[in-house]
Amino acid sequence: MAEFSPGLEGVVAAETAVSEVDGANGRLIYRGGYLIEDIAPVATFEEVAYLLWHGELPTEKELEALIQQMAAARNLNKSATGALMAMDPSIDPMDVLRTVVSAQGASKALTKPSLEEAVAMTAVFPTIVGATYRRRQGKEPLQPRDDLGHAANLLWMMEGKEPDKEKVHLVDSYLVLLADHGLNASTFAARVVASTGSDLASCIVGAIAALKGPAHGGATFAARTMLDKIGSADNAEKWLTEAHERHERFSGFGHRVYRTYDPRAKILREMARTAAPDLHQTAARTEEVALKILHDAHPERPNATNVDFWASVVLTGAGIPKELFTCLFATSRVAGWTAHVLESLSDLRIIRPASRWIGPEPGKKPLQLAKR
Amino acid sequence: MAEFSPGLEGVVAAETAVSEVDGANGRLIYRGGYLIEDIAPVATFEEVAYLLWHGELPTEKELEALIQQMAAARNLNKSATGALMAMDPSIDPMDVLRTVVSAQGASKALTKPSLEEAVAMTAVFPTIVGATYRRRQGKEPLQPRDDLGHAANLLWMMEGKEPDKEKVHLVDSYLVLLADHGLNASTFAARVVASTGSDLASCIVGAIAALKGPAHGGATFAARTMLDKIGSADNAEKWLTEAHERHERFSGFGHRVYRTYDPRAKILREMARTAAPDLHQTAARTEEVALKILHDAHPERPNATNVDFWASVVLTGAGIPKELFTCLFATSRVAGWTAHVLESLSDLRIIRPASRWIGPEPGKKPLQLAKR
Repeated sequence: MAEFSPGLEGVVAAETAVSEVDGANGRLIYRGGYLIEDIAPVATFEEVAYLLWHGELPTEKELEALIQQMAAARNLNKSATGALMAMDPSIDPMDVLRTVVSAQGASKALTKPSLEEAVAMTAVFPTIVGATYRRRQGKEPLQPRDDLGHAANLLWMMEGKEPDKEKVHLVDSYLVLLADHGLNASTFAARVVASTGSDLASCIVGAIAALKGPAHGGATFAARTMLDKIGSADNAEKWLTEAHERHERFSGFGHRVYRTYDPRAKILREMARTAAPDLHQTAARTEEVALKILHDAHPERPNATNVDFWASVVLTGAGIPKELFTCLFATSRVAGWTAHVLESLSDLRIIRPASRWIGPEPGKKPLQLAKR
Repeated sequence: MAEFSPGLEGVVAAETAVSEVDGANGRLIYRGGYLIEDIAPVATFEEVAYLLWHGELPTEKELEALIQQMAAARNLNKSATGALMAMDPSIDPMDVLRTVVSAQGASKALTKPSLEEAVAMTAVFPTIVGATYRRRQGKEPLQPRDDLGHAANLLWMMEGKEPDKEKVHLVDSYLVLLADHGLNASTFAARVVASTGSDLASCIVGAIAALKGPAHGGATFAARTMLDKIGSADNAEKWLTEAHERHERFSGFGHRVYRTYDPRAKILREMARTAAPDLHQTAARTEEVALKILHDAHPERPNATNVDFWASVVLTGAGIPKELFTCLFATSRVAGWTAHVLESLSDLRIIRPASRWIGPEPGKKPLQLAKR
C-alpha cells in the first residue's frame, strides 16, 4: 500500500499547462510561460482569462469578440433570479453565490463543459456579487451594463454609479493576480468533479464550496479582520505579541507551496501603498512584527506573508467591503477553474484515491440491532 | 518530484474508519467492521446512518430519537422552497438537488459541520427529490409526513399515496447498500471541500456535483438506459455484440477498486429476481453475454458487474423512474458524505496536491498584448 500523505502534500494529482506555482523560487507562471510580475502590470482580466482558456494572448479582434461575448452573457436566467430573490439578504454572500451559480447552470440535460460555457460562467459572477451586495444594503439589484469592462461592470453593479477609474484599475489588477494558482484546493475540487464527467456548473459550484473555507479563500476576510482588531501601526506589536501568547494563528501568513515571498503579495503590497495609505501603514508594521515573531518561534519555517494579507488591503482601497472578499476571489478564480476543467477533458479519468482503513478488524463484532 | 498517478489511483488520500472497500477480496466493510452482506439484510437506513455517524449501532432508544429528529427536519426552509419553485420543472433532478441543498444550507455565518446538521441534511433529501419528481409530473409538491420512516416518506412524497410495503423495503435496502463506499469521487470531493474549513452544506453540494457525472452516480441511469435499448433477453447477444463492435462501453461493468464481484451487486441481483422479474431476465442474460464479450476481449481485466447494473433493476422494481436514479444514490450516500466530513474534522489539513507543469519554459515568450 502506498504511503499516506496528509493533505496530499507533494502528491502530483494533475499535469497542467494552465499555471505553475514554483514555490521554491517564489514564481507564479501563467499559461504560455508568463511570469506574474511581467503580465500583471499590463494585462486586463479579460486578456488573462483568454490566455488561461486558449493558451495564447488575444489579438485585438479576439479580445473585442471576448469582451462582447462576456457583456452579452451577464444576465441571470429565470431560475437564478428566482433563487437569488428567495434568499434572505443577510445570508453569507458565498452561500448566495454557490446557490445562484448552481441555479444559473442548471439545465435539462447533461452537457460536456465548453469554452462558451466557461465564458458565460465567468461573465455572470459580477452580476451575482453586485446583486448580493445591494440586497445586503436593502437596495434593488441593478441590470448589468454591456458598455463596461468586467471590473468596471462589477463596481457598477455594486454601487450603481459611474465607477471610479482608479478603483476599476485596482479591482482589475486584483482579478488578474488571483486568476489561477496551480492545484489549489478549489481548483482541485473542480477537477475532481470534472473527472466524473459532470457538467461545468457542477465543477464551479464544487470550487466555490471549497473556496469558502477560511483555510482557502476565506483567508482574505480573516486577514482584514485581524488588521481591524490591530487598528493602528502603534498597536501591532502589543496585539500580535499577545495573540501569539494565546497561540492564535496570524491570518495572512504561511502557504503550503511558497518557500519565499509570494510574488502576488509583493505586487499587491506596492499597490496598497497608494490604494489605502492608512491601512497600508498598519499592515506594513503588522507584517514586520508578525514575521519577526514567527521567525523567532520557528526559525526553520518559511513564514512569508501570503497573498491574502495584502489583497485585503488593496480590496479595501478599491471600496470592497470585507464580507465580499471571498466572492471577489471567486470572481477572479473562476477563469482558472474553468480553464482547468476544459484542460482536464482531454484525458478524463475519474479521481478516486484510496484510503487506509483504521477501523476494527472486519466481521468480528456481533451485530446488535435495536429490538423490532 | 513525486510520481504522477492519473486519477490518484492507489494514492492514499485519507485514513478512515467510516467504510473500507476491500477490492481484492470483494468485501465492503461499514463502520464498526460490519460486512455489507451481514448488515444489509437486517438493518434499516436510519440504523446504518447512525452507525456511520457514531461508530456504533443505535440502541432502541437512540434509534427512536434519531427517527424523531429526522422526521422533524424534513421541511424545506424559505430560501430552499423559493429556489425549488423558481426552477423550471423539466430541469435535471440532480441540478435541482444541487441548488436546493445549497439554498437549504445557506446561512448568515460560517458554522463548523456538526452531527445535528448531518442528520438534518440527510433528512431533507427525500423532500427535495419527491418535490422534484412531482413538479416533473405537473403536480404540486407534498408536505413530508413525520409518521413514516425515511424510505417510506420518500415514496409518499413522490406518489402521494400510502406507500407499498414491498417497495419501501426495496428502497430502504438500496439506501442501506449505497450509504458509503470508501473514498469514491463524491466522498473525496466532500472531504476536499471540508479540508478548507468550509461548512457542511458546501461539502454536500460539492459531493452532489461530483456524483452527477456518468462515470460515478450517473452510471445507474446509463445501465438502465442500456437495458432499455436491449429490450429483451433474446436481443442481448445481438445488441451487445454490435455495441462492442462499435467500441461502445457497456454501462454497469467495471470498477476502479473491485477485482471480483461487487458484494452489493450480488445482493441487488438476488433482490431483483422478485422486485422486477421481467427486467431481471433481460439483465441476467445481458450480464452473462457482456461478461463473456469483455472477458474474450480483455482476459487480463477484472470486468465484474458493478453495483449500478443491478441497482438499476431494483430501483425499477421499486417504482423509481430512471431520471431519479442519481438522486436516489445521493439520498443514500449523503449519510456517508456527512460521516466522512465529520470524521475529517478531527485532523483538518487542507487537501492541496501538487501538479506537474507541462507548459513552455517560463519567462521566455515575449508579451504581445492587443493594441490599446
